[in-house]
Amino acid sequence: MADAENPFARRLRDCAQRIENLLARLLDDAPGEGEIARPPRLMAAMRHAALEGGKRLRPFLAVEAARLFGVEGEGPLRAGAAIELVHCYSLVHDDLPAMDDDDLRRGRPTVHKAFDEATAILVGDALQTLAFEVLAGEETHPDAEIRAALTLGLARSSGLGGMVGGQMLDLAAEGRYGRRDLAPDEIRTLQAMKTGAILAFSAEAGSIVAGAGAQDRARLLAYGRALGAAFQIADDILDREASAQELGKAVGKDEGRGKGTLVDALGVDGARRECDRLVGQAQDALAPFGDRSAILVEAARFTVARRN
Amino acid sequence: MADAENPFARRLRDCAQRIENLLARLLDDAPGEGEIARPPRLMAAMRHAALEGGKRLRPFLAVEAARLFGVEGEGPLRAGAAIELVHCYSLVHDDLPAMDDDDLRRGRPTVHKAFDEATAILVGDALQTLAFEVLAGEETHPDAEIRAALTLGLARSSGLGGMVGGQMLDLAAEGRYGRRDLAPDEIRTLQAMKTGAILAFSAEAGSIVAGAGAQDRARLLAYGRALGAAFQIADDILDREASAQELGKAVGKDEGRGKGTLVDALGVDGARRECDRLVGQAQDALAPFGDRSAILVEAARFTVARRN
Repeated sequence: MADAENPFARRLRDCAQRIENLLARLLDDAPGEGEIARPPRLMAAMRHAALEGGKRLRPFLAVEAARLFGVEGEGPLRAGAAIELVHCYSLVHDDLPAMDDDDLRRGRPTVHKAFDEATAILVGDALQTLAFEVLAGEETHPDAEIRAALTLGLARSSGLGGMVGGQMLDLAAEGRYGRRDLAPDEIRTLQAMKTGAILAFSAEAGSIVAGAGAQDRARLLAYGRALGAAFQIADDILDREASAQELGKAVGKDEGRGKGTLVDALGVDGARRECDRLVGQAQDALAPFGDRSAILVEAARFTVARRN
Repeated sequence: MADAENPFARRLRDCAQRIENLLARLLDDAPGEGEIARPPRLMAAMRHAALEGGKRLRPFLAVEAARLFGVEGEGPLRAGAAIELVHCYSLVHDDLPAMDDDDLRRGRPTVHKAFDEATAILVGDALQTLAFEVLAGEETHPDAEIRAALTLGLARSSGLGGMVGGQMLDLAAEGRYGRRDLAPDEIRTLQAMKTGAILAFSAEAGSIVAGAGAQDRARLLAYGRALGAAFQIADDILDREASAQELGKAVGKDEGRGKGTLVDALGVDGARRECDRLVGQAQDALAPFGDRSAILVEAARFTVARRN
């Protein structure tokens, strides 16, 4: 099988394995520097939340964006791992009964099902904290300016004006607080916050940790924004079309709740056209890098073509 | 009344007012740099959680510790505000039905009561993120090494090996996961994590932002650790003795749940003796600073003498 894999698929898988190893090290039971003790139950639940998880697309974007500037190794990997920790915390909290109330995640029990609700709340909290600890550590980059820029970028893309704010808008779009049926541009804003901001930052983070200049950082950010928007639309199309078995989670649930997606607003064909347009934008943003950006361009195509 | 106030009480009140103003600015509805939008419901709930709150003891420790090294102004205030944001997030999540299930906090409805559970989860998440954004911002200190040290310190003291880990141990001590009746040293570890680590870091953070050397940082940390331990014991004594009306929250609740405190383990008199011993330790740690540390020594005494 491995021989038949294209270079993109191999790199994606290799990066996921390195991220898995790094996360496993970070979530070890032994207390780290400046820590008093690590409660075994909390650690087990954090590992349940963060290990054996998904394609690790966000770290992959960070690692490949850094490689575009000739930088490899521990730094980009740690930046990617920090972003993945934030992604994982958001899934744990989104799955809670008061939020999306999901029992399964990637075919396994969600944290509050495998453990309990209180533990799941704490797991999410501690995963977020760990993300910032990882970024601030010297192993991420010897230059503290770069660590601070990463910290600032992760905070802005994942906080009240990014991911968490987007989740708040998403709950509102379900009609919980009186209103629903968003206009296409409102949906775009919601999605740019909820899922787009972190994906965009993933690509930018690679350029930051590689020490790229402002213009190149802006290019990676533009690429990441287009990819992020395409990702969410592809997800919504997938949700509309895929079977429960393929995904390992309840399908059509978002639709049943009357949540606004661009598939609702533009139809499947219209949404697909927007996806294709966004992949083109992602590609254009990287044009100045020529062939060196081939893997990242492929990542954008993969994002819209994936089946899970 | 103001004339009758001692210098300590006046400084504590002035610092709380400056923190209140800074937090109100940080939690404004207008999107900041790198943000897409700020959902009004989320912002209102975040303000409910973070404004008009308490004595602001943690920021006070940071501000006064920095002043010990001759540093005042925006930097120590922002470091203190970041710590306060983490403290506020922890209260919001601790109050949730799945955790301590509290309806009142300082006599006002808790966030999940005033808004709803989903909003309260997001509020806690976003307050934590904002704390790290504040620390990483250039306004906190021009030297990124200092910002990174603050970020690392806040993460370590509040995460899985500190505050969140301590909350996990506390839930276990309630007997949720089979076990209770901790030995005194287990209670000390739990409390050093749950409330002590952040209080200790508050004092240390002031020395960090003031650019103090390693030996002076260690002194402030030792002071903060002793103060933090005394704070929690005083809290447990208060909980045992005070009336519901004085505190604005249900009293004796912890006791009813059979949670282990040093008051249970050592009796009220034994706990008071430990408190006094710890205040002495806090004072000793600052002895090299002579009279300049009088306000911080008074803060340690205040901590054990307070009635709410």
